[in-house]
Amino acid sequence: MKTIASFVLAAAAVTLAAPASAQFAKPEDAIKYRKSALTVMATHFGRVAAMASGRVPFDAKVAADNAAIAESMSKLPWAAFVDGSDKGETKAKPEIWSDAAKFKEANEKMQGEMTKLAAAAKTGNLDSIKAAVGATGGSCKACDDVFRKE
Amino acid sequence: MKTIASFVLAAAAVTLAAPASAQFAKPEDAIKYRKSALTVMATHFGRVAAMASGRVPFDAKVAADNAAIAESMSKLPWAAFVDGSDKGETKAKPEIWSDAAKFKEANEKMQGEMTKLAAAAKTGNLDSIKAAVGATGGSCKACDDVFRKE
Repeated sequence: MKTIASFVLAAAAVTLAAPASAQFAKPEDAIKYRKSALTVMATHFGRVAAMASGRVPFDAKVAADNAAIAESMSKLPWAAFVDGSDKGETKAKPEIWSDAAKFKEANEKMQGEMTKLAAAAKTGNLDSIKAAVGATGGSCKACDDVFRKE
Repeated sequence: MKTIASFVLAAAAVTLAAPASAQFAKPEDAIKYRKSALTVMATHFGRVAAMASGRVPFDAKVAADNAAIAESMSKLPWAAFVDGSDKGETKAKPEIWSDAAKFKEANEKMQGEMTKLAAAAKTGNLDSIKAAVGATGGSCKACDDVFRKE
């Protein structure tokens, strides 16, 4: 079955300036939201990584599309690490709140690498994509190692 | 605590032309992905709806930002209704696959309404936003009523 899903990510420069805590009715809503955003991000990043590693054939357009979505998604989870959302169905470590500056630095590093990956994928150069996938994956791991349980 | 999450959704016209089934290693990955995309969409749509109903004060920029994200997200879930993903942790009804044309029509209707909502929110006109929220919510419900269990 060949399924075509065509879509447009609207161009938007977005600043969510409202207090993050006001954006979720309950801490568990924030947890569910950030896990969801990370799942969508990881799915699209994974498709690019699979091409970078040679596990699936390289298709420049598919790589660029998926990297663009992954980059967009990489911006979303962080506002959902609201106070009180350290308990419940989450692997978030207390350090996210006790060392908020370091967490911010780590997730901004990842966002920056994801932006570079999207730019590399747009060029269609597989070697650039491979390098950017490595750097992005490294920044994901670096953050997970410190701030994620398990 | 005031958290600022600033982000840019990259402009991208994207067509995912690969076979949908090849994009997920396991049916449960597809289920998790589509639920995640719908959660993120619903969160951002909900923020606009809360302003439309007067539950939270209207802020034109916040409405426009959230509507833009909701619109982007509305494009994503559908490629994940792959064959074999009707079983498991899902409320998807068999009709999604047995009446695929009607499902496509229903989710495209919703995507169209979400696009109109994003356009309305961009104008900053609250009355237009209210009307578009109503139409979008109606299209969500119409699809859920037929294709979602519970």
